[in-house]
Amino acid sequence: MDGIRVFKIGGHVVDSPERLEKFVREFSVLPGPKVLVHGGGAMAGRMQRSLGMEPVMVAGRRVTDSETLKTVTMVYAGWCNKSIVALLQKYGCNAIGLSGADGRSVTARRRPPVYVESAGSVIDYGHVGDIDPEGVDAPFIMGLTGNGYTPVFCAITCDGKGSLLNTNADTVASAIAVSLSSYVPADLIYCFEKNGVLADVNDPSSLIREITPESFRKLKEEGTVADGMLPKLENAFRAIASGVRSVTIRNSDGLGNGIQTVLRK
Amino acid sequence: MDGIRVFKIGGHVVDSPERLEKFVREFSVLPGPKVLVHGGGAMAGRMQRSLGMEPVMVAGRRVTDSETLKTVTMVYAGWCNKSIVALLQKYGCNAIGLSGADGRSVTARRRPPVYVESAGSVIDYGHVGDIDPEGVDAPFIMGLTGNGYTPVFCAITCDGKGSLLNTNADTVASAIAVSLSSYVPADLIYCFEKNGVLADVNDPSSLIREITPESFRKLKEEGTVADGMLPKLENAFRAIASGVRSVTIRNSDGLGNGIQTVLRK
Repeated sequence: MDGIRVFKIGGHVVDSPERLEKFVREFSVLPGPKVLVHGGGAMAGRMQRSLGMEPVMVAGRRVTDSETLKTVTMVYAGWCNKSIVALLQKYGCNAIGLSGADGRSVTARRRPPVYVESAGSVIDYGHVGDIDPEGVDAPFIMGLTGNGYTPVFCAITCDGKGSLLNTNADTVASAIAVSLSSYVPADLIYCFEKNGVLADVNDPSSLIREITPESFRKLKEEGTVADGMLPKLENAFRAIASGVRSVTIRNSDGLGNGIQTVLRK
Repeated sequence: MDGIRVFKIGGHVVDSPERLEKFVREFSVLPGPKVLVHGGGAMAGRMQRSLGMEPVMVAGRRVTDSETLKTVTMVYAGWCNKSIVALLQKYGCNAIGLSGADGRSVTARRRPPVYVESAGSVIDYGHVGDIDPEGVDAPFIMGLTGNGYTPVFCAITCDGKGSLLNTNADTVASAIAVSLSSYVPADLIYCFEKNGVLADVNDPSSLIREITPESFRKLKEEGTVADGMLPKLENAFRAIASGVRSVTIRNSDGLGNGIQTVLRK
């Protein structure tokens, strides 16, 4: 395997002990340098409620006041990250769990209040970070993989001025892959609970195996992809335009079974 | 500065934003390779209560059932560790926050039920770990410090079989210093809220500047040190007998002011 692979697992995987252990077992034996980025949103929401907070989401992103930042840092960087690392160690994969603060590996700046169209108003997301253009330290990550370690990132970043910031896990994975691609071929793999991009959401057999920028344009025109999948694919093609070799969207189960959607230039 | 220094800060420092920032500012500018180990017990106890649990302590150690393990991992490896790392980054110290699971750097085994004299019964501490004799990966830690990073350890370890374990932070600091001392001179510095070992607990001016095994024997005979300080000093002399060059007990404030108790062979 040439290059490096950046995997992202969502809350659906992190939240299910069975799915997580199955993923970790398969991920551990994959050859070549690899990086894992994980979410944990569902667990964070539950922890907020256990602590008497009511999660506030606007356009799919969590409004993050000080107490929410503390909670998501505890859940993402604490329990999720260290549980995943311990599980990887069990399967012989020498993982190192990191936030963006560690080694200053992923820096971000706090998002200013923005007008959110779907909310129809200006939203202050609080302690939410957008990754700096040069915010990922790719040589640091490659130094770890070169020494046989597998970095495992949660979606907490830092501003370099003492503050932690809550960042979208898909974006962290994409930024890491883009940054690595300046040095080595980088492939980005989003793992979730479906087999990939489906032409018909209700028909698992309608998997679209490959999407190019041209076929994507057609899929949009026909209305085949819409809603949640649209911004995901747009972000994926942005990553490809920024240097990532391929983006794969697939099930977290059966890594290597070839059932997946691959996006290429 | 030859050798390496391992600092440990207790809950009293971690729990006070002012004390913590003061410590971090002073720690950041210390020359030479260094490692930081932190506690966070007070915050963990508060988080347990917020989540409806009642902390159970036996002989000063937390009985750790599954929910308690989750909570202490969230607090120690999540909020405390990442807040400290972000603060160190603010002051230009390139810190990497770690648990013992990360890089399999500190492994432990679950403590079997033990008879605890002060409790008068057999106690199962649950998910509590005692560090393996060869459990600290000193070359890994020196690899980080050699590349200009400052490792920051919380007191969560792992058994290599997928489980995290709650471990005493003083013990983690001591085990790391002992392990490093096989390769380089290692000094261990315990930072807390007093100036060191006091001949009279109520008189800050009664600081004992230096303790040797001989003078320690005398202090014990006279009853000058007792209670909480006794096991601390005994552990410290054990670390020295195992290779650590010196153990310093001092205030977290004013690092480098020379007001401290130094234990030597």
